[in-house]
Amino acid sequence: MNFNEELQTKTEEMRSTLQAFLPTEEGLQKTVIEAMNYSTLAGGKRLRPMLMAETFAMFGGKSEIIKPFMAAIEMIHNYSLVHDDLPAMDNDEYRRGMKTTHVVYGEGMAVLAGDGLLNFAFETACKAFETAETLEDYQKVAKALTILGKKAGIYGMIGGQCVDIEAEEKQELVTEEVLLFIHEHKTAALIQCAMMIGAILAGAKEEQIEQIEKCAYNIGVAFQIQDDILDVTSSLEVLGKPVGSDEKNNKITYVTLHGLEESKEQVEALSNEAIQILSSFTERNLFLEKLVEQLIYREK
Amino acid sequence: MNFNEELQTKTEEMRSTLQAFLPTEEGLQKTVIEAMNYSTLAGGKRLRPMLMAETFAMFGGKSEIIKPFMAAIEMIHNYSLVHDDLPAMDNDEYRRGMKTTHVVYGEGMAVLAGDGLLNFAFETACKAFETAETLEDYQKVAKALTILGKKAGIYGMIGGQCVDIEAEEKQELVTEEVLLFIHEHKTAALIQCAMMIGAILAGAKEEQIEQIEKCAYNIGVAFQIQDDILDVTSSLEVLGKPVGSDEKNNKITYVTLHGLEESKEQVEALSNEAIQILSSFTERNLFLEKLVEQLIYREK
Repeated sequence: MNFNEELQTKTEEMRSTLQAFLPTEEGLQKTVIEAMNYSTLAGGKRLRPMLMAETFAMFGGKSEIIKPFMAAIEMIHNYSLVHDDLPAMDNDEYRRGMKTTHVVYGEGMAVLAGDGLLNFAFETACKAFETAETLEDYQKVAKALTILGKKAGIYGMIGGQCVDIEAEEKQELVTEEVLLFIHEHKTAALIQCAMMIGAILAGAKEEQIEQIEKCAYNIGVAFQIQDDILDVTSSLEVLGKPVGSDEKNNKITYVTLHGLEESKEQVEALSNEAIQILSSFTERNLFLEKLVEQLIYREK
Repeated sequence: MNFNEELQTKTEEMRSTLQAFLPTEEGLQKTVIEAMNYSTLAGGKRLRPMLMAETFAMFGGKSEIIKPFMAAIEMIHNYSLVHDDLPAMDNDEYRRGMKTTHVVYGEGMAVLAGDGLLNFAFETACKAFETAETLEDYQKVAKALTILGKKAGIYGMIGGQCVDIEAEEKQELVTEEVLLFIHEHKTAALIQCAMMIGAILAGAKEEQIEQIEKCAYNIGVAFQIQDDILDVTSSLEVLGKPVGSDEKNNKITYVTLHGLEESKEQVEALSNEAIQILSSFTERNLFLEKLVEQLIYREK
């Protein structure tokens, strides 16, 4: 099977795993559940659960213990989109070609649907305890839950969103430190979360988990710088959204700070180091290495 | 010490415990942390952590394992208030005599502060694993986390909020079933959560945990019916908010469905049963029994 076929098959598997954990649309509170499922099943690359599952496999993980966490991280990613799209935040009417949750269900219900998904992510992750038997199993799940909380919260994704909101209001305050903080927290944190949980649940050593954290940092930051590059170099046809929007909005990006050449070199350096870390482990996962490359060097 | 003095001392203890777990206001993401702490420290009766700690004590619990959960449930209660107050929900400008979070920090930051508190509640509860040593400790914390997730989410508090929002838009659909669903989920679920976690972490038996769940259901529902009664029988001076607002808003309540007399009888019956359950355990907690009575038969 070639990479693209394999990617497609695995993306469908991710969707099935996710769907198996989503709540049934029943009961008097049916509306909020419908809104949660609407936003979660609307599409997406299922990148975070895929990175989690592939890291888990690389470290020899085989059991069902990983599945609740795969669903949980995708729920967290999706709740953040639902709240990001709210009129009080980015005020977006469409996402992935579909109307956003608050447009379909109303603002109040969209706030609740986001809260519902975030809460349900932790409920779902707790199901991993049902597969635990030994003290060691419990310790692994406890550690994975702790990472999930940390990387999704104020010391991770939410922290990045806070600084991003403030940066948009005051572009003059955006330094390289601020920009890297946003990329690291808003984007890289959930990628670290995904890959670290994969490693933890597969029983990787502390030192290996730290290397994975570093690798995922590189992937996340390179991904975001590539985003800034594409906004300058791509076209509306390829990207599917208007290019040059950063310049139009006077937005400070890695490219406006360092220029196109240096930005490309930075992506190259971060990417090389990420792949080098992945290929340094005793057991390699070639699909994961290819996935990371494709993700960073994407053209849209 | 008399009950009121003891209550005051314990309320201050709750505040200290909570404060010890709140995040430090530092880092680039300082604003969202300030908004979280602002809304959490604004005041409140600290009822849920108090019910948790007293139930824990009643079942002989003594260790530090309970403290992260006491802070966590108060964070969950407060995030729900921050999101409830948003313009898209109840649109309230004041709470406990202070400006609401979105008025002070803006709507976007209030959404994030609520998300931050909900997420941080689970991060905080996970700290209980740090005090765990044996397999049994891990199992207790895992069970407590599972209850926290369930009672706060779509099968608990969020489920109640969803139905409440819909009921406000369509009062003609409010039947007794709908009304009890809202009371049970929006109010009683977090009280069940508090008392059940107290019982679980103290090592109570399955049967005892079920009795506590029933007891807390009664407390929560009686509390809400008493709320409806006070709206009819109290005065602006005593209640500190306008009375008769339910009638003015044509709101269906337990009192409009059953009349004042039957409502009072219902509070009496629920309350008696709750106290009877509490006093049936081998070790009694007289402070807890008095607290429950005061809570239900309050005049404001």
